[in-house]
Amino acid sequence: MNQEPSAETVQRGNFHVPGFRVASAMSGMRYRNRPDCALIMSDVAAAAAGVFTQNRFCAAPVVLCKEHLDAAHGRARAVLINAGIANACTGEEGIRRARQSAQRLATLLGIPYREVLVASTGVIGPQLHLEALDHVLPQLIATLHPEGWLDAARAIMTTDTVPKTAWARTQVAGTTITCGGMAKGSGMISPDMATMLAFVVTDAALAPNVLRYWLTESVNRSFNRITVDGDTSTNDTVLVLASGAAGHAIITDSSSPEAENFGALLTRVCLDLAQQIVRDGEGATKFVAVTVRGAKSRQRALAVARTVANSPLVKTALFGQDANWGRVVAAAGRSGVDFDPDRVSLYFDNVCIFKNGQPVADETLEAKASAVLRQKDICMTLELGEGNASETVYTCDFSYDYVKINADYRS
Amino acid sequence: MNQEPSAETVQRGNFHVPGFRVASAMSGMRYRNRPDCALIMSDVAAAAAGVFTQNRFCAAPVVLCKEHLDAAHGRARAVLINAGIANACTGEEGIRRARQSAQRLATLLGIPYREVLVASTGVIGPQLHLEALDHVLPQLIATLHPEGWLDAARAIMTTDTVPKTAWARTQVAGTTITCGGMAKGSGMISPDMATMLAFVVTDAALAPNVLRYWLTESVNRSFNRITVDGDTSTNDTVLVLASGAAGHAIITDSSSPEAENFGALLTRVCLDLAQQIVRDGEGATKFVAVTVRGAKSRQRALAVARTVANSPLVKTALFGQDANWGRVVAAAGRSGVDFDPDRVSLYFDNVCIFKNGQPVADETLEAKASAVLRQKDICMTLELGEGNASETVYTCDFSYDYVKINADYRS
Repeated sequence: MNQEPSAETVQRGNFHVPGFRVASAMSGMRYRNRPDCALIMSDVAAAAAGVFTQNRFCAAPVVLCKEHLDAAHGRARAVLINAGIANACTGEEGIRRARQSAQRLATLLGIPYREVLVASTGVIGPQLHLEALDHVLPQLIATLHPEGWLDAARAIMTTDTVPKTAWARTQVAGTTITCGGMAKGSGMISPDMATMLAFVVTDAALAPNVLRYWLTESVNRSFNRITVDGDTSTNDTVLVLASGAAGHAIITDSSSPEAENFGALLTRVCLDLAQQIVRDGEGATKFVAVTVRGAKSRQRALAVARTVANSPLVKTALFGQDANWGRVVAAAGRSGVDFDPDRVSLYFDNVCIFKNGQPVADETLEAKASAVLRQKDICMTLELGEGNASETVYTCDFSYDYVKINADYRS
Repeated sequence: MNQEPSAETVQRGNFHVPGFRVASAMSGMRYRNRPDCALIMSDVAAAAAGVFTQNRFCAAPVVLCKEHLDAAHGRARAVLINAGIANACTGEEGIRRARQSAQRLATLLGIPYREVLVASTGVIGPQLHLEALDHVLPQLIATLHPEGWLDAARAIMTTDTVPKTAWARTQVAGTTITCGGMAKGSGMISPDMATMLAFVVTDAALAPNVLRYWLTESVNRSFNRITVDGDTSTNDTVLVLASGAAGHAIITDSSSPEAENFGALLTRVCLDLAQQIVRDGEGATKFVAVTVRGAKSRQRALAVARTVANSPLVKTALFGQDANWGRVVAAAGRSGVDFDPDRVSLYFDNVCIFKNGQPVADETLEAKASAVLRQKDICMTLELGEGNASETVYTCDFSYDYVKINADYRS
């Protein structure tokens, strides 16, 4: 916290955002000997917004968050998070337990029930253990701390191997504002949200509708542009709370320069968290940015990029450090986008290995491309040659460990 | 060949179909010390039809086949197949080489150029070695044999571990007809065709349009219902040739009882070949039929079945012998089909582990389901509870070996 970052720099590690405190604790609900619960608390009824899974099986905490954000007109005071049990596919009883946990927290904190949000991640099916939560709530409340974020980021991990935090600052209307957050997720990650939770807070002062607008924009440029395995979950949630503690005039117009400025800050923090999730992809050894450019539309670019980024054959080739452009173009070819194959070119970083529908004749290029593939970070760029639109999707490789982690997860 | 199968029984192993001879040989084009080329020859200009990849990158042999089937009005005499080099993404030179190989074979056989079809499978990018083919063509022609199918099935293998043949007989208009074929493919397999070649011949007498109609029907019920990894290829081809050697009156009406009878025979052979491909899926240890029933439409059933059958998390759970119904329903939930989650039930074989949107409370059921998961063959049935339509997709699990095979393929 001693180093003041430039407006553009996203930092990781611990942080604090004025107006918020956070705590973590061990409930023993499923994991032993590790914190598995976190509580985020705002000093005031913060502006709040959420983006949730599109999966037809939508977990109980997601149902509750949507109801509460609506009932409280985009305001929230507290977010309770547990890892280990997802409270998904748990029927009416699951909803009842989600409500009950929120109710108990509201009572203990003396705040309105509808200003409590909840999020769960873990195994689908089992019910929440309310007694375990009961036991841990007072402890969470007693240990709330402005700089508890890194511990909280650890408490919400499931198959994650590292805690994920990001924060940055910018100037809005002459005032410095801070935006910081934590995320978890490493498998079941795909565009349209995944087994992924992210919680971002800011001391900026925004009307709830402005916050909602910029959260949607930011998620579309970050969490909806990553993929680990194409699978999405029942619980995906991104929540953002704005305390207003920075003290500048409240931003009420989504298209004002101040709102744009805040939106850019939020997007940077979300993108950094999203990229950390991909880097921590189950078994991942590579971080790959798949860019499709020269498309007629962003939709077409995105459809091609997602198909390539999700292809098991592309992802196993990346693990094998194989500059297998054939698999990349074959994946692009089945994306459903009717591009002209004879105008397609492919680059690994800046090595053009495939040009206008054919491999480049220079045989030294494959060695150069293979050198790129040995890097941990790789940029793969597919040029469609039909327009000016581009999109980027972030992915990782498919390794032995991906299979091992996911074949053994419940045993 | 000594055992006469019943009309309904599909046999594997070697076979012969009157009117056809087949040969295999070693070109050395890419593989060493193994046959890598095959030739199928019809005694007469057979009725012929093909179904090809939908990939935008369409290999040179696919382009040639489409042209020739059109130019020869659905007639063909010979099919030349090579394994190791796919002749895909090879530009004008690739097309030229495909044409040249067909031309040389036509000249050697003294048959019209347009009655030669070609198919290739293997690595994308390199050009065909015409000298190697030149060398091997006379040898192929000299060794044509009515019972060369099993050897030919071996010659067209790439990452396949077993040769794949299937044949069966039925009665058409009082005459026994035979239908037999061979296929290759074990990765890059997905609905809408994949790195998969299949060649089926019959002595039935059919007009080309009847053959074309029933090939499309059969492929939709077989090769388009399998998936190994969701990836599709540049070269996928299913060709069928009908010699008419059985001698019955030619079938000219696609909806006649004789045509239906032939169509059922062709479908049985194609489905058996398709299932052999899944069973030989790269690294596969399980064969899984994913059935979605109780859907409002077959399209909806198919969309859900394909999403489940392609889910890496479902496939790794199958490898782990884990009755992880949560992953199955979460995959169904992201299929884009707006079913009612509270009406969904899931069975592993006949064990109902998830009913009306929730896990079944009986805790002994998970053990029973786990016992099913230890089988090599598994039926997974998802009931949507919204209608009467159903569809089945065949898939396999995702193992360490899938990653190993695909990370190492070119090295």
